[in-house]
Amino acid sequence: MNIALAGLGTVGCGVIRLLQQNAAAITARLGQPLVIKAVSARDKTKTRLCDLTGITWVEDAMTLAHRPDIDVVVELIGGAEGTARQLAEASLKAGKHFVTANKALLAAHGVALARLAEEHHVFMGLEAAVAGGIPVIKTLREGMAGNSVTVVRGILNGTCNYILSRMRDAKLEFHVALQEAQQKGYAETDPAADIDGHDTANKLALLAALAFGSEPDLKTVYVEGIRGVTPLDLTFAEDLGCRIKLLGNARLTAEGLEQRVGPSLVMETSPLAQMDGVLNAVLLRGDFVGDLMLAGQGAGAEPTASAVVADLMDRARGLSVKTFGVPVAHLKKFPAVEAHEARYYLRLQVMDKPGVVADISAILRDDAISIESLLQRGKSATQSVPVVMTTHAAEWGAMRRAVEKIQQLPTIVEKPCLMRIED
Amino acid sequence: MNIALAGLGTVGCGVIRLLQQNAAAITARLGQPLVIKAVSARDKTKTRLCDLTGITWVEDAMTLAHRPDIDVVVELIGGAEGTARQLAEASLKAGKHFVTANKALLAAHGVALARLAEEHHVFMGLEAAVAGGIPVIKTLREGMAGNSVTVVRGILNGTCNYILSRMRDAKLEFHVALQEAQQKGYAETDPAADIDGHDTANKLALLAALAFGSEPDLKTVYVEGIRGVTPLDLTFAEDLGCRIKLLGNARLTAEGLEQRVGPSLVMETSPLAQMDGVLNAVLLRGDFVGDLMLAGQGAGAEPTASAVVADLMDRARGLSVKTFGVPVAHLKKFPAVEAHEARYYLRLQVMDKPGVVADISAILRDDAISIESLLQRGKSATQSVPVVMTTHAAEWGAMRRAVEKIQQLPTIVEKPCLMRIED
Repeated sequence: MNIALAGLGTVGCGVIRLLQQNAAAITARLGQPLVIKAVSARDKTKTRLCDLTGITWVEDAMTLAHRPDIDVVVELIGGAEGTARQLAEASLKAGKHFVTANKALLAAHGVALARLAEEHHVFMGLEAAVAGGIPVIKTLREGMAGNSVTVVRGILNGTCNYILSRMRDAKLEFHVALQEAQQKGYAETDPAADIDGHDTANKLALLAALAFGSEPDLKTVYVEGIRGVTPLDLTFAEDLGCRIKLLGNARLTAEGLEQRVGPSLVMETSPLAQMDGVLNAVLLRGDFVGDLMLAGQGAGAEPTASAVVADLMDRARGLSVKTFGVPVAHLKKFPAVEAHEARYYLRLQVMDKPGVVADISAILRDDAISIESLLQRGKSATQSVPVVMTTHAAEWGAMRRAVEKIQQLPTIVEKPCLMRIED
Repeated sequence: MNIALAGLGTVGCGVIRLLQQNAAAITARLGQPLVIKAVSARDKTKTRLCDLTGITWVEDAMTLAHRPDIDVVVELIGGAEGTARQLAEASLKAGKHFVTANKALLAAHGVALARLAEEHHVFMGLEAAVAGGIPVIKTLREGMAGNSVTVVRGILNGTCNYILSRMRDAKLEFHVALQEAQQKGYAETDPAADIDGHDTANKLALLAALAFGSEPDLKTVYVEGIRGVTPLDLTFAEDLGCRIKLLGNARLTAEGLEQRVGPSLVMETSPLAQMDGVLNAVLLRGDFVGDLMLAGQGAGAEPTASAVVADLMDRARGLSVKTFGVPVAHLKKFPAVEAHEARYYLRLQVMDKPGVVADISAILRDDAISIESLLQRGKSATQSVPVVMTTHAAEWGAMRRAVEKIQQLPTIVEKPCLMRIED
């Protein structure tokens, strides 16, 4: 099988190294070699961590779509538009199989691309787009293919997981932990896509589409990042027997589809709570298989290359599976549900005056929210003190309304921190 | 695609329920229905938890292999010999695809059956044979297909994991926890296959074959069960920051292949340690993907049915993968290595006399084993007391020799308990 590769960043070079290093085993497994015939990248002169000897260099990536010696085009350029999108469309239209690690492209144009793949009877591989080397797309699309899936929940961003783990373990402030992550190469110079939850949202939209056989719908994903989490929250969470994780959470019920990204309290006894550092982990719930948990390295050249090559090998082995598990014509559109009932964690920074808790409690009561526990730490006549409470299961709308009202109280001195508690 | 099903126990009925309940979704995913055409089981009159309306009942299972209206034969009879083996051979020879949940059959005759599948250009599905609904075989054979795998380690027997979890949580003696497991239906009336480790050994031999591209080799698996584990060991393990799990452990190094089943101490911080109750969990290590962890329900009608149906859907989607990932001609035979160096946990029941520890230490020293920690609990002039020690990394041969000598000491009043500590 002959392969063209567009984009020679860390993942592209990882793919070339893998195919070279494990060539003999791969050929034995497939009964044929996987051959990189041509590559294209922006800068030919750049020093790269892979050996391009014997591989044709192509200046214009778009020509890869039309080479008669190519069976599969691998796109590792990135970005929802531009060359990545054009190459995807041209390759599929030219009848090439297409493998990509581009979550932004797929979350934005996945349905159109899947339709092209169907029309031209080719395979589209996207394992590398979510959770690096963890075979979560394979598990949803194939391993659980006989199930009705109702829940997808996961730690899908290693950067945020690293930052939250370090804040907890070393009692670091958010900006210090972020800086450390940047120094270690776990976070970008502009970290917004990671820490504000958008990267997780892209991945969640893709996983939800695969899980529920629906069109990826990025617009209805509720997104919150981790900038508002403080070391105090991590300590309080621990007192409650929980860890704080940035979760992507998609749930399908009779009312519709909920998609939500936000920092959440996870019970310490849950396997998701144990996944620290840059690890990713996903929980998938099927009606027959029950709960499956997959965990591993969610990013990096080697794990992502492993996922790209798995897609290539699937294709070489004749697998013919629709991009989102079902033909595009069967993809559903579920009504977007804002959020199902859940328990919440609320931290307020209040002036320590008599009646403060009474005011807060009254607002919650008026919105039919019942308090499960309330914790006030420290006492100070002049400075503010934190009050932390957890609620019984409450509606998201009511919870948000109540917090808005609480925020107006003159005794509240900081933006409240509201997080969902996952059971 | 037309299916014949032999064996209508809990799993067989689970497969029928799944195919009926999720028929519409499965047809949409495949573009064709999965149809159970014929079934066979020992007793036609038995009341079953599935609806056989419209399905042909066949008295002699062997005839399923030769029906022209059948594409795939599913074997859920069980046992390494007898009808299960004959049906497998006849089906493959007749050019039928073959799906089985029968680990004993595969561990004993997997290579011969894989050869038949190759000769007759048919697919053999075995996902249900290991770890129930967890897609561990798919992950090894496909998801990690580009990797060189070096470690497979897992909790592969839910019965043992339940017993060990209950012994720890409720401070139960082994026989009490076993009885409880039997009452709950988690353990058989004759529990030997589970608690003596043979079930885990069958599964480990299959996973090792898939991971390393080698012939399953059950004979060289070192097997120890959990009968010797006491509540005291669970308490000591906790003091050491560990949990006790029955692990199947296969490791490939330049020296050869180690396959080992036995109760082991697992660091509490390791995700395997957190998998309690009847859960199964597997850690897989690849040279590019790093460590992957999969966890879920390892047994039961529904999860196992999910795995059987995943195999059927893979076949319907054209997947053509060799049974053990590579053609039979490429399967390797690695030299069996007894065990790699590891740290050990040793519990001795000793008479509380001066010089006891000195005698034990001297024996360990003579076998070049160095003690990492030593703990003696309680003091008694008349009764025996436990002494627990952990060692630095030591050779298995030396460790075993030393324990045999220690066992001869007149001050040792019980069979020593020796377990490996997994890092």
